[in-house]
Amino acid sequence: MNEPSNGPAGPAGLVVGVDSGGSGLRIALADAATGAVLDARASREPVRTGPGGISAAHFLEQVLPAVRALAEPFGGRPVLAAAVGAAGMATLGDELRAGLPGALAEAWGVRRLALAADAVTAYAGALGQRPGAVVAGGTGMIALGTDLAAWRRADGWGHLLGDCGSGAWIGRAGLEAAMRAHDGRRGGSAALLARAEKLFGPVAGLPAALYPRTDRPAVLASFAPEVGHCAPEDPVAADILARAGAHIAEAAGAACPAGPGAVVALTGGLFRMGDPLLVPLRAALGELLPHARTVEPAGDPLAGAVALASALATGTLRLPEDPALLRLFGEGAS
Amino acid sequence: MNEPSNGPAGPAGLVVGVDSGGSGLRIALADAATGAVLDARASREPVRTGPGGISAAHFLEQVLPAVRALAEPFGGRPVLAAAVGAAGMATLGDELRAGLPGALAEAWGVRRLALAADAVTAYAGALGQRPGAVVAGGTGMIALGTDLAAWRRADGWGHLLGDCGSGAWIGRAGLEAAMRAHDGRRGGSAALLARAEKLFGPVAGLPAALYPRTDRPAVLASFAPEVGHCAPEDPVAADILARAGAHIAEAAGAACPAGPGAVVALTGGLFRMGDPLLVPLRAALGELLPHARTVEPAGDPLAGAVALASALATGTLRLPEDPALLRLFGEGAS
Repeated sequence: MNEPSNGPAGPAGLVVGVDSGGSGLRIALADAATGAVLDARASREPVRTGPGGISAAHFLEQVLPAVRALAEPFGGRPVLAAAVGAAGMATLGDELRAGLPGALAEAWGVRRLALAADAVTAYAGALGQRPGAVVAGGTGMIALGTDLAAWRRADGWGHLLGDCGSGAWIGRAGLEAAMRAHDGRRGGSAALLARAEKLFGPVAGLPAALYPRTDRPAVLASFAPEVGHCAPEDPVAADILARAGAHIAEAAGAACPAGPGAVVALTGGLFRMGDPLLVPLRAALGELLPHARTVEPAGDPLAGAVALASALATGTLRLPEDPALLRLFGEGAS
Repeated sequence: MNEPSNGPAGPAGLVVGVDSGGSGLRIALADAATGAVLDARASREPVRTGPGGISAAHFLEQVLPAVRALAEPFGGRPVLAAAVGAAGMATLGDELRAGLPGALAEAWGVRRLALAADAVTAYAGALGQRPGAVVAGGTGMIALGTDLAAWRRADGWGHLLGDCGSGAWIGRAGLEAAMRAHDGRRGGSAALLARAEKLFGPVAGLPAALYPRTDRPAVLASFAPEVGHCAPEDPVAADILARAGAHIAEAAGAACPAGPGAVVALTGGLFRMGDPLLVPLRAALGELLPHARTVEPAGDPLAGAVALASALATGTLRLPEDPALLRLFGEGAS
């Protein structure tokens, strides 16, 4: 076990990990040296986004009282480091980067802080500090890999420019196949048309229902499970998932380091679709990444934030800094 | 030449054709019996859309003075019929259907009126009253066909549910190939990446530039010509256009009547892309519609509106009525 390099000689230090996303905020308090989680809290209120990006004030409003309450039973132990993973950190993190280092130093005396894209905390949670690639799949899809010298990102460009193989991609392709069946065009699926009409009503009304919405990717993704249900019997649905599997493997292939010993993990709700997606995906991974072993993710993004904070506190961080993906603040930051 | 079945024995009657779309309004005055256009006017002000759909008041504000001015030199000749083709007529035409028949009867004494979807006036302009199919391609893509008993529509479902092969579809596929090249994913095109960066700047900024816009399909379609430019040298771009050609032919195939003698026409700005799209499209049409002859469109949607009005006036309308596509009002209306 590493002794915290900057730790006081007194009681063992603590670290804080935070995972902030569209469905809310999760906060964990852990032992700095072991990374073992001591206690955790969740809030279902997502941090607001304002003109300056993700609101630092709203973030602190939720996190400071929660950490105070979590740390209370461990009164004498100092918070040595914190790591925050947030969806949109790269593009919407300006306010967090400006406000958090000072605010957390003042509140907890924390001297080391990591601000990470949610894909980085997903990586650290799933694979720890090993070289490899993590695919995070849900409504969207992004692959992030590292050889521990630099990060490589693939896809994650949203439902019009990419997210190939994501929930939105699969659902969109399924609805297109439904419309094709409705029109009598080639490539249609009567099974998907029946599912679409059951879910959304007559499909001629779908454009008017879909296009005015602001959550179009989520609406499209809501149809992805129907494609999964149809795939065992319906060749059009099966083909959609085969193509999705190939696209996901292509992203993993671009993100994963080439050397031997790389590991790949699949995380996120997309992969709960099971065999209809996983069978063709595994085949595509075997073809494109024969040198990489696919492993179960060890933990979730909150576990990844805790692992980052613990590595910071113990001076053992191996994951590379990156201006968009992983920024370090305080002692030892470059 | 047919004598207008309901015409007065006096001077030869007139008809009015109107084409209303996103880029404005065009109005033609024609001889009822021959359909020959006597004079025409254009307004660059698109008819407003309000809570009741396309605004009947704003439509009449523009059309009534224009027709008065057009008809002035032909003072003694009565307006026997009018036809209005409008984009969005099916879903946004309630106010027009409620207000126009009475207003035009009062203003011109017109006794026969046709309200048509713009796809119907495009059909009548391109093919007249022959059985066949017309593909209208631009930012979107729709195929409309008829055997003169009923209409068959294929695609036209918008950029997320279909419009397969449209300008938005081609541009989106081209940008996806650019992002693939940026990531090092399979299926990327360095040529399309270079074009995208020239047009939009560094592609990592594309999501932030594209997604907040309300005219996303038009932004996507703005990249379609770049795919056309790259296709002669770039296999990825050529493959995108080959797939677009197949999709367009699939829509034409679903809309076109099966019998011999059917004709197919391609209309709209999409087909100005020329050979890179037209060569694979013609090949796909030959495969899917071997019985149909592809012809040049005879005229545009304004000519189609005039043709409809003339057919109404002379009692020679053969194109089928349809609640969403072609509604007739006044004498002889069903």
